Formats: sequence, C-alpha cells, structure tokens
Amino acid sequence: MKREYSIIGKPTGNVDGAAKTTGEAKYCFDMSLPNQLYGKHLRSPYAHARILSIDTSEAEKLQGVKAIITGKDVPGGKWGLWRRFRELCDQIALADDKVRFIGEPVACVAATTKDIAEQAIELINVEYEPLPGVFDPLEAIKDDAPLVHDDFENNINATRHIEWGNVDEGFAQADYTREDKFTCFPQAVASMEVHNSLASYDKGSKRLTVWSSTQSPYYLQLGLADALKMREGDIRVIKPHVGGGFGGKNSTMPDSTSAALLSMKTGRPVKIVFNREEEFISTEHRTGMHVALKIGLKKDGKIVARECKVITDGGAYTGLGATALYLSGIFQTFPYKIPNYRYDAFRTYTNKVWATSVRGFGATPTVYCAESQLDRAAKDLGIDPLQIRKMNVMEPGYEAPGQYKVDSCGIMPCIEKMEKRIKEKWPKVEENEGIGFSAFAYMSGGIFNWIDTPYAYSGARVQVNIDGTVDLFTQASDIGQGHNTVSVMICAEELGIGMEDIRLHPADTATTPVDLGAWGSRETLMNGNAIKMAAGQIKQKLVDLARAKLGENIAYDLVAKDKRIYLELRPERGFSYYDIVRDAIKLNDGEPLIGTGHYTPHNKGMISPAYGMGIMAIKAKVDKEIGHIEPQGVLIVHDCGQEINPLGARGQVEGSVHMGLGYCLCEDMPNDNGMLLNPSMNDYKIVRQRDMPQIELMDVPTYEAEGPFGAKEAAEATIAPTAPALANAVFAATGAEFDSNVLKPEKVLKAIRAAEAKKAQKK
Amino acid sequence: MKREYSIIGKPTGNVDGAAKTTGEAKYCFDMSLPNQLYGKHLRSPYAHARILSIDTSEAEKLQGVKAIITGKDVPGGKWGLWRRFRELCDQIALADDKVRFIGEPVACVAATTKDIAEQAIELINVEYEPLPGVFDPLEAIKDDAPLVHDDFENNINATRHIEWGNVDEGFAQADYTREDKFTCFPQAVASMEVHNSLASYDKGSKRLTVWSSTQSPYYLQLGLADALKMREGDIRVIKPHVGGGFGGKNSTMPDSTSAALLSMKTGRPVKIVFNREEEFISTEHRTGMHVALKIGLKKDGKIVARECKVITDGGAYTGLGATALYLSGIFQTFPYKIPNYRYDAFRTYTNKVWATSVRGFGATPTVYCAESQLDRAAKDLGIDPLQIRKMNVMEPGYEAPGQYKVDSCGIMPCIEKMEKRIKEKWPKVEENEGIGFSAFAYMSGGIFNWIDTPYAYSGARVQVNIDGTVDLFTQASDIGQGHNTVSVMICAEELGIGMEDIRLHPADTATTPVDLGAWGSRETLMNGNAIKMAAGQIKQKLVDLARAKLGENIAYDLVAKDKRIYLELRPERGFSYYDIVRDAIKLNDGEPLIGTGHYTPHNKGMISPAYGMGIMAIKAKVDKEIGHIEPQGVLIVHDCGQEINPLGARGQVEGSVHMGLGYCLCEDMPNDNGMLLNPSMNDYKIVRQRDMPQIELMDVPTYEAEGPFGAKEAAEATIAPTAPALANAVFAATGAEFDSNVLKPEKVLKAIRAAEAKKAQKK
Repeated sequence: MKREYSIIGKPTGNVDGAAKTTGEAKYCFDMSLPNQLYGKHLRSPYAHARILSIDTSEAEKLQGVKAIITGKDVPGGKWGLWRRFRELCDQIALADDKVRFIGEPVACVAATTKDIAEQAIELINVEYEPLPGVFDPLEAIKDDAPLVHDDFENNINATRHIEWGNVDEGFAQADYTREDKFTCFPQAVASMEVHNSLASYDKGSKRLTVWSSTQSPYYLQLGLADALKMREGDIRVIKPHVGGGFGGKNSTMPDSTSAALLSMKTGRPVKIVFNREEEFISTEHRTGMHVALKIGLKKDGKIVARECKVITDGGAYTGLGATALYLSGIFQTFPYKIPNYRYDAFRTYTNKVWATSVRGFGATPTVYCAESQLDRAAKDLGIDPLQIRKMNVMEPGYEAPGQYKVDSCGIMPCIEKMEKRIKEKWPKVEENEGIGFSAFAYMSGGIFNWIDTPYAYSGARVQVNIDGTVDLFTQASDIGQGHNTVSVMICAEELGIGMEDIRLHPADTATTPVDLGAWGSRETLMNGNAIKMAAGQIKQKLVDLARAKLGENIAYDLVAKDKRIYLELRPERGFSYYDIVRDAIKLNDGEPLIGTGHYTPHNKGMISPAYGMGIMAIKAKVDKEIGHIEPQGVLIVHDCGQEINPLGARGQVEGSVHMGLGYCLCEDMPNDNGMLLNPSMNDYKIVRQRDMPQIELMDVPTYEAEGPFGAKEAAEATIAPTAPALANAVFAATGAEFDSNVLKPEKVLKAIRAAEAKKAQKK
Repeated sequence: MKREYSIIGKPTGNVDGAAKTTGEAKYCFDMSLPNQLYGKHLRSPYAHARILSIDTSEAEKLQGVKAIITGKDVPGGKWGLWRRFRELCDQIALADDKVRFIGEPVACVAATTKDIAEQAIELINVEYEPLPGVFDPLEAIKDDAPLVHDDFENNINATRHIEWGNVDEGFAQADYTREDKFTCFPQAVASMEVHNSLASYDKGSKRLTVWSSTQSPYYLQLGLADALKMREGDIRVIKPHVGGGFGGKNSTMPDSTSAALLSMKTGRPVKIVFNREEEFISTEHRTGMHVALKIGLKKDGKIVARECKVITDGGAYTGLGATALYLSGIFQTFPYKIPNYRYDAFRTYTNKVWATSVRGFGATPTVYCAESQLDRAAKDLGIDPLQIRKMNVMEPGYEAPGQYKVDSCGIMPCIEKMEKRIKEKWPKVEENEGIGFSAFAYMSGGIFNWIDTPYAYSGARVQVNIDGTVDLFTQASDIGQGHNTVSVMICAEELGIGMEDIRLHPADTATTPVDLGAWGSRETLMNGNAIKMAAGQIKQKLVDLARAKLGENIAYDLVAKDKRIYLELRPERGFSYYDIVRDAIKLNDGEPLIGTGHYTPHNKGMISPAYGMGIMAIKAKVDKEIGHIEPQGVLIVHDCGQEINPLGARGQVEGSVHMGLGYCLCEDMPNDNGMLLNPSMNDYKIVRQRDMPQIELMDVPTYEAEGPFGAKEAAEATIAPTAPALANAVFAATGAEFDSNVLKPEKVLKAIRAAEAKKAQKK
C-alpha cells in the first residue's frame, strides 16, 4: 500500500542543518538584548523547611543589583499543565511559606552582570525552620508521613484506575500466573541546552515578550498567564532553536517566571540561564516508580489477564506526572490483546524535584517491567519469545474497551520480518551471549485535554506569495527532533513544489497558529495534518483555476507535482505552478493566497489517534566475572506508517536507543534525603558515542489513514523496548532476572548468582 | 454629517509614544547582531568621471577587513521604483564604468569595527578620468551637453504632457493674462534618523534578512530582489521604528544593497549607517525646477486658462522623480476648476545626487508658483484674495477630464470659515504687516501603479484570539507620522473594543500583508480600508453568532461597541465581546478568527481616490531695513474628511508648516559644480522650535465615502500652502514679488526695492 511521493519518504537533510552545524542557528542561550540584566536564583538547601524570614537588604546594597524578588513579590498565581483540574496547578514562582525540595528557588536577583547576581544571592539571608521530609513514595503514603502539600492527604497527588474485561475471571482461567515486583529508577533529561529564558516587559503597552528554550511556546504562554495573572494575549512567547527537550521543557519554570517578574520590576530585559547543577537539581526528570505486575497465560502462551499496581515518586509538584501515571497503565498493554486488564496507580508527593514526562513517557518504565516479565513467563512455559509475542499481538482495528482503538497496525509483519532477519543476522550465539526481544508501540500525540485548550490541537497557516514562495506558520516545535524538516516536506509535497520554495517561521505565539507543542510524538501526525489541510486549501484553488483555464471536463483529475499543475493522464496539458499562483493572486484582488489548517482528534478513544509500533532485538554479551554487559547490536523493525523523512526517523531511533541504553545500564540519580548526589555531567553517566552498538533499522510500512500521507509516530517508541530487550538478552545469556533498571556490574553479578543458585536449586 | 464614534475622532496619544519617549523603542540604528561587521562606502570625489581602475589590495591587507566590494562584484541588476518602465530602473549598487555625482559609492568595505572600515576606504586606490559634468537642467538639455546616461538623449529622463479643455481658446477669452517665471530650489529631507540597514544572509537557506530605516519595506524587498537578482520571497525586510522618512526613504539605497552584498560575501551580518554628510550628499531631496506659468482670467476673477512649463533638475537617477514630475502638473490645479489647462514638463539628468518625492511631493514647488501668481492677478484685478479663490474652487463631484475626480470637497466651507475667523483673529494689520493666503489640496495615496505590483495596494490581517486580544498585521509603515495609532484606532472602532486589546505587529515582508508603504498620505485611507475590511469580516461573524444565540429577528440590527455585541435598539440584549469570541472560536473548530482585508482604488481616475484640502492664512511682519520676514501666526481650515486622530493630525500639521517655512525662508542647498556646500546640520538651516509661529487649526469635516469611517488625507496637504501663504503675506505687506523660494533677507530686500521701483514707475 506504499504510495509514490515526490518528497515524502525520501531521506532528507534537515532544513536547519547547515545553520546548526555552522553555529549560525541562534538558541535562546545565544540571545541578548540591549540593556539586559542577568538573573540568578537563591535556592533552598533544605528539602523541607518553613521560611521564617528573608532579608535582602545587604544584597540590595551591592553595586549593580537592580532588583530582588522573593515569594512576597509574586502575584500569587499558581500554575501547572493540568489546567483542567485547578487543584493540580501547584507550581509557584518562588517559594513563599515553605520550601519543598533542595534547590527550590526562594529569591531571584537581577543584576548588571552574572557575577554580581551570583555574589548578591550569597548576601541574602534566609531563616528556615527545617521540617521532616519524605523521600520515598512508600513512606509518603503512610498516615504519619509529613505532608508536602497540606491539602493532599497521604501525599497522594493523583490516582488512576484502568480496567477492562474481568481480571479475576481471567486469572481463574489461566494455566500459569506469575507476579514480579520492580523498582524503576528515575532518569535525568540532560538536554545539551539548559533551561534558559529572556524576558522583556514593555511598561508602555503592558505586554511581555519571552524567548525561551521550550517544547511548547503555547504551554509557556498559558503558564506565564496563570503565574503572572496576565491575559494570554498580552504575553508573547518566541521559541528560537532548542537544544533538546525530551519532555523536560513542557512546564513553565522559574527561568521564565522570574525573568518575567524581574523585567516587570525593572523595565529592562532579564535573562536567566540555569547552570548544569541547577538543571539537575531543580528541573524535571523521568518518574521513578514501584511496579507490581501479575500476568496470567494459557499454557500455549495466550495472555488471559494482567494486573498492575504502581506507586510513583512524584516529587514536590505535578508537572506532567499525572499524565505519565495514566499512560504507564496504557503502554504496558501494547501491542498486545489483553482481554482482562486492571491497573491501579498512585502518584505521591515527595520532597524532591518533581518527576514528569520524559521521552517515551508512560511507556519506558512499565514496558521494561512487562516485557521482562513476558520473557520469564515464556521461558517457564517453554515458548520462544517471538512466538509468545506473535500469539498475542493486536491486529488492525483492535480496540481496548473504553480506552483506545488501533487502526493501522503492522506489528505482526514486523515480528515476521524480525524472525526472518534475525536468522540471517545472528544465526547463532556464543557462550555468555544472548538475544533479547521487546515489542513496542507508542502514541502519535495525546487526546486528553488536560491543558484545557479551547483551540484546535494543532494549527497551521500557509501563505503563497506572488513569486510562488511560501510562508509556513505554526507553533509546532522543533526541539531537535527534526519537525522543521518534516513540516516543510509535508507542505512541499501537498503543493507539489520544492522545499526551497518554503520558508518556515519559528514558533511564536503572536504570529503563528497554536499547536500544543512537541511531546508524545504529536507533531508529525497532528501538525502534519494541519499543514496538509492548510496547503491543501491553496492547492484546491490552484487546481480549480487550472481546470477553468484548460477548459477541462470537471471530472478530470489534476495533480500538483514538480512545480506544475497538470492533467494526471495527460501531463503535457497544464501550467507552471508559478504562473497559476500569479493568476490566482490577481483573481484574489491582489491578496496572497492564505490557507489555514487545524487538527483535533475525534472518535479515536482516550489516548491517541494512531500508534507506531514494532519489535526490537538486542544481542548482548555478558562478562560473568565482572558483571559488564556489552550490547553488540540492535535490530529494529518499525511500523511508523508512511515515513516522512527516513533520515530524520533514523536519527531519532538512534537517539531513543541511546537514551534507552542509558536507562538500562548507567543513568541513575542517587538521592540522599532529598539531595541528588551526582548533579554534573561528570558524575551523571550517559552512554558515550563509542559505546553505542550498531543499529539496523527496517520498516514495515503501513498507511495510517488518520495521518498526513499515511504517517504516524516514529522513533520515540523505540526508547521503551531498549531496556527490556537488553535485559532480556542478559536473561537469555545468563538467566539473570532484574527487578530494576540501571544494570550496573554489581547488580548484574548479584542477579547472575541468584539465577545460578535458582538453577542449582531446581536440579 | 459627522458621525458618532467611540474611538475615531478623539484626540489620542500615540500607541508607541511611551516606548519612543523612554528610549525603549528600537530603531534600526539601535540594532546589532552577534558577529556583526560594519560597512563603509568609498565615495566619488568627482561629479562625472570614468573609473579606470580600482585597487583594493592595500585595504585588504588591513587587519580586521573582511571583504571589499566594487562595481565588479555586483550581480548587475539595475533597479528603481518605476518598475513598470524598465528603462527608468537606472540605479546601481556601486558605480561600475563611471561615477555620476560627487558622493556616489564606488566601493564598500566590511570590517570588524567602524574605525577599521573607515581606515580601509582610505587605502583603496581609484584611478579616475574626469569628464565634463552638467549641473543645471537648462544646460543639460542642450545638444552639446555631456550625457549623464548614454541612452538618454539631451539628458531627458522623463517627459509629461497633461491637457484638458482648449488652452488657446481659453486664453483668447481671457480679459487678463499674466506670465511668471520661477525657480524652485531643492530642499533636503533631513530626517533625524539617517539611512541605515543591517543585512544578514543565511548561506544554508540562501535567504536574506534586512532591517532598514525605510518608508516601504515592500519597495525595499522589490529593490533588493532586482539589485541582487534574487526572488522576492527569499528576501525578508523588517522595518523597526523609523526616525523620519518624508519621501527620502522610498528608494532602495546602498546602505541596504551593499550591506546585503557584503553579508552574502562574508556570511556575517553587516550594518551600514550613513553619517550626516553622507546623508546630505548621497541621498534624495526635493526636486528643484524651473517653472513658467501663464494664467488667464475674466475680469471678475474667473480663471479661464492656465499653462505651465516645467523643467526639473533630476540629478543622476530617477527615484520617484518621474512621479513628482507628473504630480507637479496636477496639484497646482487644485482646488480650482480650471476649464482649460496645459502642462508640459521635462525631467533632466544632471551630475548631482538625484531628486525625488519629498513631503507634499508634486505640490510644494508648483503650488508655490501658482498661488503666488494668483494673488498677483487678484491684486491687478482689484479682487480680494479670498474672493478670487471662492470664485474658482471646486465643488463635490468635480472632475478634471481624464485626470481626477473629487468626491468629498469642503473647500468652499473652509474658505467661508476662514473669512469669518480671520476677521475675529486679525481684525487689522499694522504697517509692514500682511496676511497672505493659499488654498491647498493633497492626495490620499496614489493610483498609478509605477511599482508594478500585482498585490492589492494595501493589505491587513486581523486575528482574534481566545481571550479577545487581537493581533493586527500589515506592512503599512509608521515612519513617525502616527499610522500605528491610526491603525489601532480603526481596528478597535470596527470591532467595538479597546485599543489596549490590539497588538500591532511591525511591518515585515515575511509575516505581514503587503502595503505599498508610507508616501503620498496613503496609509490612513488605503491601509485604513484594508484594516476595516479585515476587522469587519470578524465583526460580521460575531454579530451573526450573537444574533443566532439571541434568536432575534434577522432584520434587527446588532452593533459591536464598548466590548459588547448587542441589539442597537435594546442595548441590554447582548453579550460580552469576550464571550462571543470564545464561542466563535469553538465553533470555528478551535481556529482563531482571522479576517483579511485589502484595498486597491478603482474608478477614481489617475491620481488618488480622495483629496484633503483647505485654506491657510499667514500673518507676517517684514523688516524693510534688513529684509527679515517674521511669520506671526498661521491659521488653517482643513477638510480632511472624518479625522481619525485629531491629536496626530495636529502634530503632522505642525510638522508640515515647519517644513514649509523652511522651504520658504531658509533651507537651501547651494551647489558648486556638483558639490553641495552645506552638508551638515550646522550649515543646513532648519527653522528652530523657538522661531515657529503659533498655529491655529480648524476643521471642516466632510465624510469621504471612499475612506475608512469617512477619512481622507490629513496634514501633508498643509506643507504646500505654507510658502505661498507666507510669500503672499510679504506681497500684501510690501508688494514684493518673488521668483523663487528661500526668501533670505538679501532676496527680500531686492524684491521690496523692485516693488517700490515699480510702484514709483506707475505713478
């Protein structure tokens, strides 16, 4: 069902690649304005403490200090991403009555230089009354636990129950059941560009402009409106190039709110750039959680029931953590038909920086657990890991009652392709080697409207000028994932023109149509649809005009391709795109051609309009003496519908595997009573380029009718299977079972010894 | 016929007034980009010379010099504003084979600092072969005159013939005829902000962005496209705040083209700022001309014929000089019914910087001549100056055959109001005092499409967001005249909201709809119509929705006013504007409301869709001993249709009178064989604030059906009558007749003596 396109599906270098590699591309980090001040936060050294007093008088005397704000200076607006439920809007600009985590900002200084700002915060005297803290979710829910927020009993921030079928009956029918408990540790975001914002308030018009490194200018606009008690339309957010987001730049953070407040106070532009330590200790990370998982199967391997209980370590605020909580119950069921399913989950407040969405959010931790458990069950039942997956996977049209519907679905052909290829690629394994598998699926953007926007989920405006050049406007956000290129490809394909004809404008809430931002792999499908609709409106005008000029039968088909509009069956009969545009604008009273497009999902359940999916295999070698795991190769078969830009998708798959390997092997965030012990790039261990295994990527193209040109989610899905595929490879090689991620050598050795002991016991 | 508006017609402070007075407003002059280079031109010391060689090798060796361009480096595209007639596109980026005026750029250096760039141009060695030059138009047309451009015989750049009625028959019917010859000297523009541009070329996308102090971003985009042989859509022009234009910033000048070429060559941003001397010697000024004028009247004062011959001193290139040539034949006929009229004019090339449009262009010189002559004729016939004007003025609906149509026309009531007021204000004059009059009229933008745009003459886009805030987009240019405020007032009035609800975006060719720019008083009527149409589209949607929600009879009228949409006759039945907007966006699938508007004049003749007009009186005292003229007061009655912002119009009238007094009294540009002798603000004499007379402004409101809310031209019209009203005051006081402007004391004394001699002779 693959269709022929001119641009779509061809490996294409990024439209901003040259600018980024030459340094011409400007990030918020690079920006400055005349007369700019530098902001710096004073942060709490306590995980939980009451603020008794803040004395800024000494700091104010320092030459070059222009303003200092504390919690008393903020308008008192709380904000959050769960705007539909105001009680979950718990973020504050600066701590007022108490601090809730180490690193929480309590004051912010604006000074003429960074050095002066840093000196000044040392001169601020804060008197604290330390309070007992709570650092583990299992402690947090106890009745005598200290409360992080007074209004939330037992520190329970959010709960989730998902259920379909009849789980108890399901387990009753099972020939085999198994229970496993896991602890999933958090993971840092570690974007190359730290959080930073530049705010400029105009006292004359009472309007605020903020440049920020953000995944969603619209969310930032809303967050600032709530925080500053201003109306949205008086706040303009501009997103320059962004050096990585990965889920950690959806929330409105103090770099923006404090810069804005200080600019309002001083009337001068204020820039705040977090340093790397601030980035680690005060910005969001992947949610840690405890997971209890029970599965029931028939002896042929057919899953009949699953039950999952989750309690997450939410940290001090909500962020997108409530969403992650829900999706953690959803993606572990993919891409399988589980007839009876029950999920109960709690998100707890703790005295740490808060946990939220991070790449593959909702999938990465619980898929690790579920796919690990599935291989253990397969082994117990004597079934091949690929066979047990084939037995259970979804087919097109599958529906999880009341939750989600899956239209295009290439998982079975993916597994079949994997079976074939793996025999060629890795015909045999040596001793201490193993091949592990994990299936995967992920969403193409989310449906539930927690942000409570009244706008379409994605909008685009296309303007065609007299010379045929196109201006493309949208708030859809490229944060390094390549959406700028995807946007231009979709627009060019729809109009039948060249990518060089299109100028894409950066996301700017004052000049580009709203899009909810880059998260949950939503941009390609949602924004792609909006762009295609906008460009399609113009294409229709051009085709109609060409038909009229040709005098053709109304039933004849015309196409827009190769910069021409012509009769599909008689290509010589047609016009240059540029000529038709010129005529069309003249016919339009001299107004350029404008098309507007939008997309909001309808009739697609609660989760997402479409799902990318596939299967991953990792071959690994385990050094049993020292516990070192060496991934030797990664093989992926991915159904992402019609690929828009295979080169971009490939790059994103590499990134996902890289981050997934880090999640599995080495990225951890040790915490001592609320203090992160490794807040630096030196101590936080990320997989190095030279340790990356070779990755082979194959695709099973499907056509997703809901997506632009048949496209859906690509690449983000491949983070979640990485850790379980690797753990399963170790399991295959050694029998070692892991009850957590971060498989450092000592943990590996311990698990191998436990496996050997178990084996010996069985004999 | 005055209508009641909420915002229109109320004196209103400028929307950008606070930003401008606090220094927050950024002009191109204030801008810089990271990694920016500074450009500096080497200029010709010869008025006319062949370039034999240019040696840049020494300059290139200077540390910090990054690039040097000469005529050889430019793509060879010529450009100009008369794009409809390519032979008049005569401008070049840098002189190639020869130089045509002193100050013409021959090379440009980009260096890391301004100082280095200035040092570097001293090191460039140009070998010239001097050529004989031509400096006066009467010399230029002689057969043996040197040719400024080889292709233009007798140095004739453009010719104009205008004729209606039968001039010879007209003169045959006259009881009285009179001929006068005048020389009108040029006038500098002298904007506070000099020409300056910042260009940034992106080698990756091959696109150019230019920030510039310009009156028309669109013209600059077109000029750059022609000059650089790029397509328009790959060039983006952004207009920050502009510190004055007055007609001198319509052309694409070397500050833009050289900055662009040097940025393309270096890949770095390049800024070029002319210094004040460069501004004087190399940028456009008001056209000097020789005028021969003949008038024929019946003895009762009725004009029966006029003939005018003009030869203008065009300078080395065309600019808007060809337009000025045409309009010089038109505006001298206003606001009179001249039954038989003939105009023949030539524009000559000379070896000087070229002459173009300047405030009141086409009107200021020839109106000076015609209104001076009319008072002399009136005196000869023994008729009062106001009576002779009343006898001849147009009435509504008047048409000059084949040229123009005048709809709203308040000239007669203006004169009647003047007659009444002047008796109260200046009941008598002392010795050596006189009161002079001049009628006036001016266009509301031009009709003839010399720029050859296929776009509507003005476009606007209005977007209404969920919170009711409005984003208003247009390329219409505020260059200090207050159009930003007028735009917002018109948009707010049409939607019935507050000015604070509207955010106006600066003119930017990539994000705002095309408008031809600020010249000829076109923005209020043309862009005002486009904005009203765009806002009106949205108002209609809101009104329709409100009607549907109220369930009212379809024939009932609803109004949008005071941030409500309600039944006109039952104001309590209605909705908040903000609530209706929210509903309308939801009904629109979550897309914000977008209205687009445009305006192109139709069926309005060749000149303009509408004309502001009126009458001015100046009382002056003449010191007969020293020849000093002291203007004592100015009285103006102005029909500008419905005033949009009376405060803004008043400010512009003051500016026009100020510049008109300079034209009359002191602003001159003495030239010695092509060399301007006073290229500095010290030597070029402008009327000082303390020498400004008191100005009383009255209006005679008409309703111009073609204009937004009944508006038409305001204030620019009042420059042209200033000089003749003042000269006529001197004439009334002393009998002195002037055959040129710039009435310095020696000229005044001479004219007084001639008048006294004539008087004595008559006795």
